[in-house]
Amino acid sequence: MKRTLQRKISGLKAGRVSERDFLAFLGNFPFSNETEIKLDFHRQLRRGIPEVVFGQGKSVEQLRRIVSKFMEMGEDLLITRIDRERFAALKKEFPGLRYHEAARIITCDRGPRARNKGKILVLSGGASDEKVAEEAYVSSLYLGNRTDREYDVGVACLARILSLQKKLNHYAVIIAVAGMEGALPSVVAGLTSTPVIAVPTSVGYGANFGGVSALLSMLNSCAGGISVVNIDNGFGAAFQATLINRKRS
Amino acid sequence: MKRTLQRKISGLKAGRVSERDFLAFLGNFPFSNETEIKLDFHRQLRRGIPEVVFGQGKSVEQLRRIVSKFMEMGEDLLITRIDRERFAALKKEFPGLRYHEAARIITCDRGPRARNKGKILVLSGGASDEKVAEEAYVSSLYLGNRTDREYDVGVACLARILSLQKKLNHYAVIIAVAGMEGALPSVVAGLTSTPVIAVPTSVGYGANFGGVSALLSMLNSCAGGISVVNIDNGFGAAFQATLINRKRS
Amino acid sequence: MKRTLQRKISGLKAGRVSERDFLAFLGNFPFSNETEIKLDFHRQLRRGIPEVVFGQGKSVEQLRRIVSKFMEMGEDLLITRIDRERFAALKKEFPGLRYHEAARIITCDRGPRARNKGKILVLSGGASDEKVAEEAYVSSLYLGNRTDREYDVGVACLARILSLQKKLNHYAVIIAVAGMEGALPSVVAGLTSTPVIAVPTSVGYGANFGGVSALLSMLNSCAGGISVVNIDNGFGAAFQATLINRKRS
Amino acid sequence: MKRTLQRKISGLKAGRVSERDFLAFLGNFPFSNETEIKLDFHRQLRRGIPEVVFGQGKSVEQLRRIVSKFMEMGEDLLITRIDRERFAALKKEFPGLRYHEAARIITCDRGPRARNKGKILVLSGGASDEKVAEEAYVSSLYLGNRTDREYDVGVACLARILSLQKKLNHYAVIIAVAGMEGALPSVVAGLTSTPVIAVPTSVGYGANFGGVSALLSMLNSCAGGISVVNIDNGFGAAFQATLINRKRS
Amino acid sequence: MKRTLQRKISGLKAGRVSERDFLAFLGNFPFSNETEIKLDFHRQLRRGIPEVVFGQGKSVEQLRRIVSKFMEMGEDLLITRIDRERFAALKKEFPGLRYHEAARIITCDRGPRARNKGKILVLSGGASDEKVAEEAYVSSLYLGNRTDREYDVGVACLARILSLQKKLNHYAVIIAVAGMEGALPSVVAGLTSTPVIAVPTSVGYGANFGGVSALLSMLNSCAGGISVVNIDNGFGAAFQATLINRKRS
Amino acid sequence: MKRTLQRKISGLKAGRVSERDFLAFLGNFPFSNETEIKLDFHRQLRRGIPEVVFGQGKSVEQLRRIVSKFMEMGEDLLITRIDRERFAALKKEFPGLRYHEAARIITCDRGPRARNKGKILVLSGGASDEKVAEEAYVSSLYLGNRTDREYDVGVACLARILSLQKKLNHYAVIIAVAGMEGALPSVVAGLTSTPVIAVPTSVGYGANFGGVSALLSMLNSCAGGISVVNIDNGFGAAFQATLINRKRS
Amino acid sequence: MKRTLQRKISGLKAGRVSERDFLAFLGNFPFSNETEIKLDFHRQLRRGIPEVVFGQGKSVEQLRRIVSKFMEMGEDLLITRIDRERFAALKKEFPGLRYHEAARIITCDRGPRARNKGKILVLSGGASDEKVAEEAYVSSLYLGNRTDREYDVGVACLARILSLQKKLNHYAVIIAVAGMEGALPSVVAGLTSTPVIAVPTSVGYGANFGGVSALLSMLNSCAGGISVVNIDNGFGAAFQATLINRKRS
Amino acid sequence: MKRTLQRKISGLKAGRVSERDFLAFLGNFPFSNETEIKLDFHRQLRRGIPEVVFGQGKSVEQLRRIVSKFMEMGEDLLITRIDRERFAALKKEFPGLRYHEAARIITCDRGPRARNKGKILVLSGGASDEKVAEEAYVSSLYLGNRTDREYDVGVACLARILSLQKKLNHYAVIIAVAGMEGALPSVVAGLTSTPVIAVPTSVGYGANFGGVSALLSMLNSCAGGISVVNIDNGFGAAFQATLINRKRS
Repeated sequence: MKRTLQRKISGLKAGRVSERDFLAFLGNFPFSNETEIKLDFHRQLRRGIPEVVFGQGKSVEQLRRIVSKFMEMGEDLLITRIDRERFAALKKEFPGLRYHEAARIITCDRGPRARNKGKILVLSGGASDEKVAEEAYVSSLYLGNRTDREYDVGVACLARILSLQKKLNHYAVIIAVAGMEGALPSVVAGLTSTPVIAVPTSVGYGANFGGVSALLSMLNSCAGGISVVNIDNGFGAAFQATLINRKRS
Repeated sequence: MKRTLQRKISGLKAGRVSERDFLAFLGNFPFSNETEIKLDFHRQLRRGIPEVVFGQGKSVEQLRRIVSKFMEMGEDLLITRIDRERFAALKKEFPGLRYHEAARIITCDRGPRARNKGKILVLSGGASDEKVAEEAYVSSLYLGNRTDREYDVGVACLARILSLQKKLNHYAVIIAVAGMEGALPSVVAGLTSTPVIAVPTSVGYGANFGGVSALLSMLNSCAGGISVVNIDNGFGAAFQATLINRKRS
Repeated sequence: MKRTLQRKISGLKAGRVSERDFLAFLGNFPFSNETEIKLDFHRQLRRGIPEVVFGQGKSVEQLRRIVSKFMEMGEDLLITRIDRERFAALKKEFPGLRYHEAARIITCDRGPRARNKGKILVLSGGASDEKVAEEAYVSSLYLGNRTDREYDVGVACLARILSLQKKLNHYAVIIAVAGMEGALPSVVAGLTSTPVIAVPTSVGYGANFGGVSALLSMLNSCAGGISVVNIDNGFGAAFQATLINRKRS
Repeated sequence: MKRTLQRKISGLKAGRVSERDFLAFLGNFPFSNETEIKLDFHRQLRRGIPEVVFGQGKSVEQLRRIVSKFMEMGEDLLITRIDRERFAALKKEFPGLRYHEAARIITCDRGPRARNKGKILVLSGGASDEKVAEEAYVSSLYLGNRTDREYDVGVACLARILSLQKKLNHYAVIIAVAGMEGALPSVVAGLTSTPVIAVPTSVGYGANFGGVSALLSMLNSCAGGISVVNIDNGFGAAFQATLINRKRS
Repeated sequence: MKRTLQRKISGLKAGRVSERDFLAFLGNFPFSNETEIKLDFHRQLRRGIPEVVFGQGKSVEQLRRIVSKFMEMGEDLLITRIDRERFAALKKEFPGLRYHEAARIITCDRGPRARNKGKILVLSGGASDEKVAEEAYVSSLYLGNRTDREYDVGVACLARILSLQKKLNHYAVIIAVAGMEGALPSVVAGLTSTPVIAVPTSVGYGANFGGVSALLSMLNSCAGGISVVNIDNGFGAAFQATLINRKRS
Repeated sequence: MKRTLQRKISGLKAGRVSERDFLAFLGNFPFSNETEIKLDFHRQLRRGIPEVVFGQGKSVEQLRRIVSKFMEMGEDLLITRIDRERFAALKKEFPGLRYHEAARIITCDRGPRARNKGKILVLSGGASDEKVAEEAYVSSLYLGNRTDREYDVGVACLARILSLQKKLNHYAVIIAVAGMEGALPSVVAGLTSTPVIAVPTSVGYGANFGGVSALLSMLNSCAGGISVVNIDNGFGAAFQATLINRKRS
Repeated sequence: MKRTLQRKISGLKAGRVSERDFLAFLGNFPFSNETEIKLDFHRQLRRGIPEVVFGQGKSVEQLRRIVSKFMEMGEDLLITRIDRERFAALKKEFPGLRYHEAARIITCDRGPRARNKGKILVLSGGASDEKVAEEAYVSSLYLGNRTDREYDVGVACLARILSLQKKLNHYAVIIAVAGMEGALPSVVAGLTSTPVIAVPTSVGYGANFGGVSALLSMLNSCAGGISVVNIDNGFGAAFQATLINRKRS
Repeated sequence: MKRTLQRKISGLKAGRVSERDFLAFLGNFPFSNETEIKLDFHRQLRRGIPEVVFGQGKSVEQLRRIVSKFMEMGEDLLITRIDRERFAALKKEFPGLRYHEAARIITCDRGPRARNKGKILVLSGGASDEKVAEEAYVSSLYLGNRTDREYDVGVACLARILSLQKKLNHYAVIIAVAGMEGALPSVVAGLTSTPVIAVPTSVGYGANFGGVSALLSMLNSCAGGISVVNIDNGFGAAFQATLINRKRS
């Protein structure tokens, strides 16, 4: 890019490039840099995160094409939001795929993965938050983090979460998954100095609005040290936790 | 009102009031009385709750007329949502009025009040919930309940509420007032077998929507034993708690 | 816990524990008490409510494991939100289960249940509120309350509810279930001094928003003495009513 | 306007106005008139409703120009949503104006108005609905209807509305104004065969959302025979009631 | 009731009834009248509307019981929101039932129906509003009104509705059914002095929110003379139109 | 119309038409013009857009009748929102129909179409926006525009959209289709002086609310030069782009 | 800015500015300039739109700094959302500023502006939409378009908009501004083949939600050829219309 | 507080305080202290964050009491959401306070603060996001982080943010503050592997809903590595960033 610019400047000085053309060229200046574009070409290179495919709404046919391409290139792969039916269809063709049923995730690991330094803890409020918590847990492992999980530690019975208090500070990040009134992250953040990534779940009924009640609770937490990802977005929490954990390393 | 009625009854028994006139009087009983407050007296008979006036949006002039009537009849009175300015204006004319500043309530008690049997506990999450908590507290006292209060026991510091745990079961009803993520009632209900009346407050900012975040949390509580009144409705919680406490007596 | 603390204090006095370690130990002070944790271990012990399982969204396999465990321990059990299909599947294995079709509830009672002192009344506005009302009714019985029910007493025909007026005051709690405009609790509360637990239902169509219209009506009731549980939460109302009724006993 | 038209017609008949000029005049008929009020006169011809100006947000200067025009033409006039300050400013210049304080309406009647055949009844739920109810009441009178009013007949005390039951059927239309839970129209419609126009008011607090709770209640009414106008739209209800009453005549 | 009252009064005068008991009796006064309750027993008697059953969500078994009862009593019957499958099941047992497919309504007329004086016009904006418009149309006929219909007259092509203008004033009521932007009632009301009952439909997609966009348009109409019923509530509009038309007769 | 008017005027002058009748006639003046109505008769004539049918929710039977009519008249036809099943059913009877699977559109072109002068570019953010982008693309072609498409150029990888920057200015209109956070149109509009029609899609999950998040982003864009159509409304964007492109020609 | 750049280029050509310094200057080109307005100049080059400042919420002091900069550089300027008070304060210091009161806009034109080829028409529904319509009108003129305006042509009186029908097709773009039910763009789009940019206004009351009712109407329009900008965004509509009109030139 | 505790410990070791008194003291440890600020000191021990007071809605008198206490104890202090008027009033009494006007923050630092290892970068989209960005920036410094800021780098001009790309990876955390369409965090996260804390601001107008549009954008970001705090919560973002940065140290 710099070279193009220097060429233009030389042309301008030499009279080969008119002032008007030079002005037009500058109008597009900061966007046409080819080097930057190359850096962008592979998100994986730029951000250090292995590839992840959002499986919800994708047909078996679409998934087959995606898996095929990864297999060809010998890349690792994680696909979220996959039900057992679609997995079964893919498994026939790609026997190397592994299904994590509770997490609704397919993974295909090609070898040992470098470990980030810190550990991540996945907490969930109730049994029905398990799918989302498992999505976070399996994703976190896949993204290279040592990861623990403690489920069913919701605020209706404080004893459960209090019994974990001592070890909360040992983690680099805590992912707190909760539906209904979504109070778990507030309580956890009040007990530790570890940053909490809160994941509201769509679990609940009545005036729950698909997880909005938990989402609002988490955004309005009176305890500092909480930031929130989208409803049911277990993978997103694991991704954010991984970036934080990497920084630590 | 009761006195008017008793006069009519005396008149009827003494023959000064004809049966026909008495019937006509009764036909209009709870609504033909010219004062603005007539109707509520009937409620007093029917529901056993002394008179309460919702002061929000009422002018000094309107309040003056109401207080006048009550003074005349020697009735007790509680007015909610009154700022200091309107109280000061009324105080000049009615020196017997008492202002509860934190609760924004005016009361005028004429004598000792029969006490309900159980006790009520008012809890609040944070300093900014105090106005609503005080509205509940002062109202609860006025409605004849022995009432305790413990403020600033929000979930960001569990120690506070845990230190109260032992005594929670001694109350007939707990009123739990909280804004922001509104998690206090859930945590309290998980610690006791006393019924909890939850009061969401409009305290907060951002995606709080004037208390909706706390309201939804409370409605979606994973801990049973919670029912909810409207946002900031401290009086409403005290009223409901009183009815429950009465039943106990 | 106290012993741990005393040991730490002794250590401090004896110089075995440094001032710094002692400060760190105190940082976790009110949360590590083992006695409290034991109290929390069984919600049933703490709150006096037999076990209830929320069946919505649970698979037959999940339910089978739960029922098995309760059977083993000889505990009573109530499962809400169960359709006939899942009940039929469970019945084969556990012939002692009983299905309450209108309430969509499974119960398994092991013996006579201690009765609370007061009585509870379940009211419903229209025929389509019946499922929720039945959930409240069956739950209330299971939780140890003598319970009556009067359905289809909505405000479009006041005569029905007026005909019940005399007996409303005899109950410890009234559960008022209503969908659509949700006006029933307001009207009932205006007729009695018994506390009313209002249950909005998701019955309706158009600008009903899954029960939000009824929920807002109930929260905004101009009649005092109403508190509200979540939309369709018949069990929650019964739970709250039980706690109130217990206090009376 | 009508007079200008009649003058043109007279001129045409008398030969003072050419057919061509008359056609040009008509071509622009309802919109070429320079005054701001031109267009509404055509509405007056088309729909038979005297002129009404929505005063909210209009400056004294804007109102002065409008009143001037009407005065000049000798037309009747009603202006809604006017506070006392703006009225006082206008009164100085136009002493013939009359202010209805409770209704926040200015009227200027030039003579007796033809009466529609039926009568209209305006009901309101509580004292705080009075402004909107008065807007409906004064507008209804101005639009030529014999009109009665009964305020403060809300559902928290059914006795009030029940005492009116017998006469409800005598009206051509009932306008039922209510805030908070908005249950009045449902109860009224259940007691009569007169059509009910429901007006939700923005009265309330907490989860009231500026009248949305009452609006939803009215739209979801389980009693037939209710249709709804916008929140606080007392004039709109009177307008609709007038059209209905006209049809009866 | 009056007799009971007179007996109480006699008792009071004679000393058989204590003053205290008399006061307690009066507390329930306006609600225990047995005559009123009898009037309420049949809504049909009170409001003059033949029976209507809301079929949505009712099982064939529930419907069978309802139809049976009406058949027995020789009453007319209209059931709304019935799909062809449930009709087919009922038809086998009750061959007298008639299905109006486009309206999703079952009727069973036992004889000629008295006709109301005025006529009702049902308009619809687009082809997809037809179901709701037909529900209004068939209901209106069943409720005794001469009824016309003009469909597909939406505002995207004004010519259609303009071509109807002349006859709009001949109707007692116009029911205007529209989805999407819901502008039809505004345009129609601007063209006539007939009252318009607006029915928003849930037709549309995107930011339509199940008919909310049309509902809000209709509530915010700048043309007076419109009142609104709930989304898709064709029957409700017909009911309201019938009450208005009756008043005319 | 003019003739009718002239006849009326003649009648008025001649005394055959009374002044009163003339006034009544004028009341309907601007709406009864028959010429205008004729212009409205065919939207196609008036707006120059070939016929389009919204297929969503239409049964095969309804579609068959529509296609039949168009076939008869030799008209072109485009049907949106058609799944493969309904196409297959129609194809049997009308072999000339062509299905665009990704766009869910059926077309039937009878011959070469006149081309508008400028070109249109359809951009989409992610793979899951493809259906809506294809609806826009196929519709744009059908409506006579030379059209390009560039998919999967979302803001998470700026390189993709930056690489297109140079050619953005060559288009008459850009249609930018995006779900989730809907940031694509903002970024594109910041890079070009071509007007952008933004299409939010309902793609996403969690607090996405069926496309509302993208819709709000687009409406709130800090970059000028964006206007928005309804969620998922690919056809609507193509229609608007066509009108703009026509103007250019 | 352009002048600074031209000076640099001249210097480069003349040898007064070294190539290295020029590169450094360009490296920071669009963002290193110390003034607050620096960045927008680059937009001006890129998008061809003269500078516009959003005045809402800016203090007189902030505005003074901005105007100063523009004055210095001899650039044109338009500031939106300015009340008379802030204008008066600025006018003292900058007598060349001109205030468009109805539009709440300040402009400062330094000379004749090149005209785009087509014309733009601004329509508004009612008198209260005037501010927004004027913002669009004045902005459109400033951005170099011949612009007409026709106000108060709302759908409650179709005659007004019908009288304009013939000329609608002559415009390159129509900006249709409307509040309340927002039906104007639908009706206009149905009458013309000119693209319509719809601007919802926050005018209205009750269930209007600050313009949401109009916004939803416009997004859900059944007439094609409408795209929408944000509520009250008159300038945004003019900006979009200008880009469209430019393409035509 | 810490000093009180140390005094008690010294007393215990020296025998001046009995073990029993010490236990009693500890039993009430974090909550029996009479000052309003007592409780937060415990949080300070537990979470390692210096004290912060949320100033919004607090009176000068309340603030004076709080500052007094902190001064007495020689503790650092940060108060958010303070306007200049309240600061001026406090400054008179406490000359050591420092006001950060753009951030609306008061600080009182007693000495050098330990620095966390990594650096934090605060980005903002536009000039109007500055208040919130400054709240984040000043808070971040106060909480012990080396912090940089780059404002006005919104997506409407990508050049600005692209020019920062190279250095983005050098930060431990990026706080991205944006209003309106809230696209900045998505774009930033796509360019770096540093975790992004997104802060939506309430800046905007029209369908912005006080920041909801930006909040939804950020929650729905298609770029991973973003978590969100509440609207306008600059302090909350700095708090979360500090916890993350600490973990790194």
